[in-house]
Amino acid sequence: MAAAAAAATSSSLTQSFLISKTNNFSIKTHTSNHHHLTFISTALSSPPIRTRSSRAYTIKAASAKTVTENQPSLVEKSVNTIRFLAVDAVEKANSGHPGLPMGCAPLGHILFDEVMNYNPKNPYWFNRDRFVLSAGHGCMLHYALLHLAGYESVKEEDLKNFRQWGSKTPGHPENFVTPGIEVTTGPLGQGIANAVGLALVEKHLASRYNKPGHEIVDHYTYVILGDGCQMEGVSNEACSLAAHWGLEKLIAFYDDNKISIDGDTNIAFTENVDKRFEGLGWHVIWVKNGNSGYDEIREAIEEAKSVNDRPSLIRVSTTIGFGSPNKANSYSAHGSALGAKEVEATRKNLGWAHEPFHVPADVKKHWNRHILEGASVETEWNKNFTEYEKKYKKDATELKAIMNGELPAGWEKALPTYTPEIPGDATRNLSQQCLNNLAKVLPGLIGGSADLASSNMTLLKMYGDFQKNTPAERNVRFGVREHGMGAICNGIAHHTEGLIPYCATFFVFTDYMRAAIRLAALSESRVIFVMTHDSIGLGEDGPTHQPVEHIASFRAMPNILMLRPADGNETAGAYRIAILNTKRPSVLALSRQKLPNLQGTSIEQVEKGGYILSDNSSNNKPDVILIGTGSELELAVKAGDHLRKEGKAVRVVSFVSWELFDEQSDEYKQSVLPSSVSARVSIEAGSTFGWEKIVGTKGKAIGIDRFGASAPAGRIYKEYGITVEAVIEAANKVC
Amino acid sequence: MAAAAAAATSSSLTQSFLISKTNNFSIKTHTSNHHHLTFISTALSSPPIRTRSSRAYTIKAASAKTVTENQPSLVEKSVNTIRFLAVDAVEKANSGHPGLPMGCAPLGHILFDEVMNYNPKNPYWFNRDRFVLSAGHGCMLHYALLHLAGYESVKEEDLKNFRQWGSKTPGHPENFVTPGIEVTTGPLGQGIANAVGLALVEKHLASRYNKPGHEIVDHYTYVILGDGCQMEGVSNEACSLAAHWGLEKLIAFYDDNKISIDGDTNIAFTENVDKRFEGLGWHVIWVKNGNSGYDEIREAIEEAKSVNDRPSLIRVSTTIGFGSPNKANSYSAHGSALGAKEVEATRKNLGWAHEPFHVPADVKKHWNRHILEGASVETEWNKNFTEYEKKYKKDATELKAIMNGELPAGWEKALPTYTPEIPGDATRNLSQQCLNNLAKVLPGLIGGSADLASSNMTLLKMYGDFQKNTPAERNVRFGVREHGMGAICNGIAHHTEGLIPYCATFFVFTDYMRAAIRLAALSESRVIFVMTHDSIGLGEDGPTHQPVEHIASFRAMPNILMLRPADGNETAGAYRIAILNTKRPSVLALSRQKLPNLQGTSIEQVEKGGYILSDNSSNNKPDVILIGTGSELELAVKAGDHLRKEGKAVRVVSFVSWELFDEQSDEYKQSVLPSSVSARVSIEAGSTFGWEKIVGTKGKAIGIDRFGASAPAGRIYKEYGITVEAVIEAANKVC
Repeated sequence: MAAAAAAATSSSLTQSFLISKTNNFSIKTHTSNHHHLTFISTALSSPPIRTRSSRAYTIKAASAKTVTENQPSLVEKSVNTIRFLAVDAVEKANSGHPGLPMGCAPLGHILFDEVMNYNPKNPYWFNRDRFVLSAGHGCMLHYALLHLAGYESVKEEDLKNFRQWGSKTPGHPENFVTPGIEVTTGPLGQGIANAVGLALVEKHLASRYNKPGHEIVDHYTYVILGDGCQMEGVSNEACSLAAHWGLEKLIAFYDDNKISIDGDTNIAFTENVDKRFEGLGWHVIWVKNGNSGYDEIREAIEEAKSVNDRPSLIRVSTTIGFGSPNKANSYSAHGSALGAKEVEATRKNLGWAHEPFHVPADVKKHWNRHILEGASVETEWNKNFTEYEKKYKKDATELKAIMNGELPAGWEKALPTYTPEIPGDATRNLSQQCLNNLAKVLPGLIGGSADLASSNMTLLKMYGDFQKNTPAERNVRFGVREHGMGAICNGIAHHTEGLIPYCATFFVFTDYMRAAIRLAALSESRVIFVMTHDSIGLGEDGPTHQPVEHIASFRAMPNILMLRPADGNETAGAYRIAILNTKRPSVLALSRQKLPNLQGTSIEQVEKGGYILSDNSSNNKPDVILIGTGSELELAVKAGDHLRKEGKAVRVVSFVSWELFDEQSDEYKQSVLPSSVSARVSIEAGSTFGWEKIVGTKGKAIGIDRFGASAPAGRIYKEYGITVEAVIEAANKVC
Repeated sequence: MAAAAAAATSSSLTQSFLISKTNNFSIKTHTSNHHHLTFISTALSSPPIRTRSSRAYTIKAASAKTVTENQPSLVEKSVNTIRFLAVDAVEKANSGHPGLPMGCAPLGHILFDEVMNYNPKNPYWFNRDRFVLSAGHGCMLHYALLHLAGYESVKEEDLKNFRQWGSKTPGHPENFVTPGIEVTTGPLGQGIANAVGLALVEKHLASRYNKPGHEIVDHYTYVILGDGCQMEGVSNEACSLAAHWGLEKLIAFYDDNKISIDGDTNIAFTENVDKRFEGLGWHVIWVKNGNSGYDEIREAIEEAKSVNDRPSLIRVSTTIGFGSPNKANSYSAHGSALGAKEVEATRKNLGWAHEPFHVPADVKKHWNRHILEGASVETEWNKNFTEYEKKYKKDATELKAIMNGELPAGWEKALPTYTPEIPGDATRNLSQQCLNNLAKVLPGLIGGSADLASSNMTLLKMYGDFQKNTPAERNVRFGVREHGMGAICNGIAHHTEGLIPYCATFFVFTDYMRAAIRLAALSESRVIFVMTHDSIGLGEDGPTHQPVEHIASFRAMPNILMLRPADGNETAGAYRIAILNTKRPSVLALSRQKLPNLQGTSIEQVEKGGYILSDNSSNNKPDVILIGTGSELELAVKAGDHLRKEGKAVRVVSFVSWELFDEQSDEYKQSVLPSSVSARVSIEAGSTFGWEKIVGTKGKAIGIDRFGASAPAGRIYKEYGITVEAVIEAANKVC
């Protein structure tokens, strides 16, 4: 389609929808990396627009510039293509959110067509710019852009299958379904926090691995967030940290459309967001006309890139459902199909005479170049990396391991082992030993605590703090921001396969970050949740700090490992499992109090989930099976010793992870918990909810089905009946 | 003790700890309520300090003024008493947080001795000022103040039993243990959000019930929050709303001591809090010297009270562990006992020669007046209320019902009932019917949704929105702030017994507010959590929006009712239960999709938790028991019909609430689920975790133990095997 046709289309719009020309778009050249210039000038006739550091951005942005200067109206056409792909997909599904894609199409177009650096044929290219749609309900925007850019994952068929069973285009963006989607969003505020994690990784790895002339790690993280994301506390937490860390390559667009589901944001959201973000330490820019102010958007991005010490928030005023004559600027454009009549009216209003899902040939042609350009950008990067590899072999090897997610041979040997003679310790301390040993062999291990490093015992002693001016360090200080911490770790995990983020707080405060933990499980991110103070055993802080139902609540959650190690070996074994499970997160419940190293534990047996610790029965026919986890395994052991002295055949089983035990063969399960033995007693300082599955209807689960109390730990254990005596009594009753 | 002795004490302090005199404290008189002046001038010789509206404040503040002007050093002595009560209690317990009480003692003294309005002998006096220590770890500050003020709940014995089994002084403030404590805090950020709820109630009830000359509802809400609270997202959510609602009688003190557990706040918290709060819409004041700037603190409170359109944040710069020569201004003063040596050094440094737990006689005498004054303030209020009652009988009756928590006679008749002939509906819609019917008879019902009112179906049609300028209305618009919403509702519930807050979002997003829900359960607050879209039945939005493990996760939580009604009668029954349970919250899981009204359901039976819906067996000996909840009860019913046609004796059981069923007599339980019948099948579109307890080892639990999917609901149900056919198949297998 020619420019003339586009102009005709444009003239059919109402006055308020008139789209401004891009003639005033002025280009500034501030490129600091002059070593790139030769390459650029041979490729292009016009001067490159300012970029921060790498060749790649310059190519993309500059070539886009060339195109858009010659054919300004093609931009409008591309933008309307995006709008109608979204409208049509939602209409066909009769479900979805057309409003955001219609409003943010101009921004989306500029980002994917002019600004971002990616290779559609390799969505996992390491140095790509990351894009996160934090307002995940608007996912048709992202799918439309991936489609236009040439990603295999979103073909026309996929758009037509939007929100259908088995499609690549689910109702909210899911990284584990659709290559090109970086993280899983939809629950509001998560995406911006994930983006902080992505940008953290970029700054961290760049600082660790880049060398002069070899900016191997060098990309931006772009994110679109809406009013909902802004209202969520998790976004404030993460954005406070983003500024604290000076993540200058994080550029967030706030889709300020003044509409949320309940109507005008005036009913619940009247704060001054600009001022809040300035308070957080961000650079704030306002794009007044996000509907058609292409140059305004471009200039804002330029300005954001020129800021070198802090992240930027670009507030973009848009109209939700832009183009819909009767539903624009209203909540009715937000979360449901426009309806056939309104789709027709919108087509008319925007001069869009095409069939549903149509991509005009010139738009298609225009976008096609990204396939070549993307390949070329990656090739250039590969060339650079090859040179880097020659010059900096050790760094390159390490970085490659991070990029590929390969664990170094023999890494497991770093895990400490223990014998019963070694004095006992709190599993939180044993955890710190594991973390410190592992940090020496796992270059991708990075993490920290939500202001409880000295209680959670998470400091890596050989490293300093990851901070604005020391980003190569690996101790992350999250402050008292559990939810942000969890979501940031999801972003870290999804940046690159070999990164192994861990994060810590008191186990009870998983309640603060449960949404992020669930998303870790759903989105298959290998985050290690180091959760200490895992029961009433923490003592005096009382019931607000004592988890009770938390173990059960994670056992009920899909695709997550709930591990409660009993001593040094099991703690090491739990770390081994957490690291080996690349597609699921692990929650480690660790004690505040000292626990002895038990006879019979081992690193390896943890992978079975449940295993026999000791047994004086024969023929798989014990009189009673005592089952314990974590700090209560010791009680089961002691009760077992006592019962054996009384002549009983007793099996003691450590049940460190239900999920892992569930995954064992029936034969193995029978060898540990034979169906023929119904005399079973479990003990765990937590809710008994669910334990009937293990102890059966004739067994007895000893646990805590009420809230904790404030007192020294020993006293609470006694008052709550979590004792050796209780196990003995129960065992005598059931067998 | 005389002023001279205090001066001698003072002179023994080091220069840096010298406490400024209060001579410069200038009094401004802006009292707008001139009808109070006569009373004041008879009571006092000096002019009253400015107060906003009520007589009560004026009395308290003015009399304090008289005392402090005559005896400036008594203030210092009182402040040091507070400091050492905290130091000594923590030392005796060898556990706790001395740092905050030592730093905030001046502020605490001024609030409780000079500013606040309360009656120590009636901690539940309706019109008291509310005080919330959001930084709950510093609870010894609050206990010390309650002790000095003459509350029966905190005697010297109680201080000596700090953090011990069964004491009234647990490790964090617990409203259900200690009269005088308004809400349960400790998990950071909750208290400030609770305080927003308390202030909301004040504004709401004042607007509904106050009349000229009868400001029956008229109190301030004071809260102290620390760095941790500031970092937590929940506080930002709640504070955004507080400004939006213009809660001008909410005065928050930010204890800005620059220290958190991990050390200097510089390592994780460098935002400009003042600017953020200005962005949120608060009035912000900075007290530069919170350690000894008594007048600065007083003036800041005056200024805050003079602001009539927004809440105030008073940032008070303090020194954590003030007075401790070696631990002040360090994290080591935060969370553990100072140690005998440092306690001694601190005594010396602050010139405190007394034995542990000693309250000097003059300090005791000084504080004693609060008992008389408190009684007099309440008497005055009672007198006023008696007059009000005469003039405004209807209003007074209603307000009294709210104050006393009495449910109006016959309120239950407002609940709608249904027969199978009535067309089915989504339980979220049926829930709205209940809410609207109940709002007519329950004057304390108030609530709303986190920006999903039209999806959660929570609007009260006869009311408008609770907003800054329409605070008498009862639809609260929380915006997309689930966590803040939950914590605010806890504050509402704890303001006054007869308030019944409800709040709503999608069930899956209980993950965002789980910490607040847990505190509702722990602190015994009657909040109704209206959670719609309760399963894969929501369809296309996909797994990020589909709860799976959530039902199980609440069943595992102590002191909360997890209700999943199946139709209209059960929904009404669930509301009945939720309202009758004044000391525990309820979670109502409600469907997005339509459900039929089933034969055999009733409002009353819900209170049994589980009951027989239909049965063709005799002698309590069915061939099989089919058990369903919520939207799956219909599947159990249909499967039962089919199996009966095949000749089976089938019992169908509705299992709407496990907790309620657990509380029934063994006899009743056996009448529903006889031990002799092991052929049991359950069906629920959620995790099967825990169902072994109900179906036993020989039964079968049909459910979902993986994440959901994005597709039309019917398709997902089929693909996930949540079908009538699956129930029939399982039934045939087990019996």
